[in-house]
Amino acid sequence: MLINKKYKVGIIRVASFEDPKMLNLHGELIEKYMPFIETESLCIEDQPEGVHDLVSKAVAVPKILETAKKFKSPDAIIVSCADDPGVPELMEIMDIPIIGAGSSAAAMAKRYGGSTGIIGITDYVSEAFLKVFGDKVINLGKPDGINCTIDLMKKGGRESVIKKAGELKKAGASSISLTCTGMSTIGVAEEIEKAVGLPVVDPVLAEAVCAGFEILRNNKVVNSEEK
Amino acid sequence: MLINKKYKVGIIRVASFEDPKMLNLHGELIEKYMPFIETESLCIEDQPEGVHDLVSKAVAVPKILETAKKFKSPDAIIVSCADDPGVPELMEIMDIPIIGAGSSAAAMAKRYGGSTGIIGITDYVSEAFLKVFGDKVINLGKPDGINCTIDLMKKGGRESVIKKAGELKKAGASSISLTCTGMSTIGVAEEIEKAVGLPVVDPVLAEAVCAGFEILRNNKVVNSEEK
Repeated sequence: MLINKKYKVGIIRVASFEDPKMLNLHGELIEKYMPFIETESLCIEDQPEGVHDLVSKAVAVPKILETAKKFKSPDAIIVSCADDPGVPELMEIMDIPIIGAGSSAAAMAKRYGGSTGIIGITDYVSEAFLKVFGDKVINLGKPDGINCTIDLMKKGGRESVIKKAGELKKAGASSISLTCTGMSTIGVAEEIEKAVGLPVVDPVLAEAVCAGFEILRNNKVVNSEEK
Repeated sequence: MLINKKYKVGIIRVASFEDPKMLNLHGELIEKYMPFIETESLCIEDQPEGVHDLVSKAVAVPKILETAKKFKSPDAIIVSCADDPGVPELMEIMDIPIIGAGSSAAAMAKRYGGSTGIIGITDYVSEAFLKVFGDKVINLGKPDGINCTIDLMKKGGRESVIKKAGELKKAGASSISLTCTGMSTIGVAEEIEKAVGLPVVDPVLAEAVCAGFEILRNNKVVNSEEK
């Protein structure tokens, strides 16, 4: 029975963490969500503020490609960033499923129909969301005072995110997509959903289920031994 | 820890089965895929050939709404049919997540970008796929000799499906979406993938992970007790 086997998934964190608890936080969530996944988390170097604009994204991509090589025979790799940095490049050079938080969140949000309102730490709409939603993305810019994932953890960070969600609802969004995995770190999805009454897509949950889909798709659970 | 709790998911089969093995087949796959889900399967009455065109779909919808009421306090309901019959109606009248195979498969296929080629048992493109893919669905009609799910299990059924997948690849598809859950019953996704080399979306796997997403989204795993 499938559950007895654990599949190895490498998690690339696109901010440099010294604290192993922070480094492993997304991986631990993913293991809880998908019990057949075992994670190893690695982070890129010299980028304590992570990926928060096109420049920091460009700088991160080669580091992400290097980091991906360090995992020992992973069954899949997740780039745990909603901007999907390095995801297209890794797909080109590696033979295993590569999952980005951005394309995963966009796909899950698409199920709710209509337009999705994005809340992230960038002013632009990520390519992953543009590909899935086209002009059906509502972007009202970053929440006040939020410029990087660290700001989300500061006083007033959560309130600012919830305020933005309310504005997106007024602007016609039928779902809210959190386009920064730092939103998963602070676990704010549920609060937003309660406050505004729209389905909220948490990017780490989205990447977890999409990784689950890829692993199950590639590992013949249909033909596995019965319990 | 989440895995210790099982969430109850009602599975509605849109063909009338007398054989409990056939009735429970999708539910058993879903339980394997998502170990925190426990399923109960019920089928609609007097429709041995299931949903295979707009008329049989229209006839099925009121039966699906009746069937949904029979589950005892489910955490979610899956309508295990790629045409999503009754899904919008159930969303209106019920307060729990309602998951359709069609919208789930479309969302998972969207992650692969480009156009998806559909293989089902209807000549039309389902609304769920139109909503997600717009004009990016490649539909070359039903596989030869396939008019209902029963035909898939007959001699030559699998070969006919694989042949159609090859034609869809030639027509420019970057993924294959199986738009009939009977394709999951016969477990043909892996064979197609090997034969044509495109990612293939199995609708029962797709509905399983999307149900997993909805359950995890609504049940605060983030705040659950640690192992």
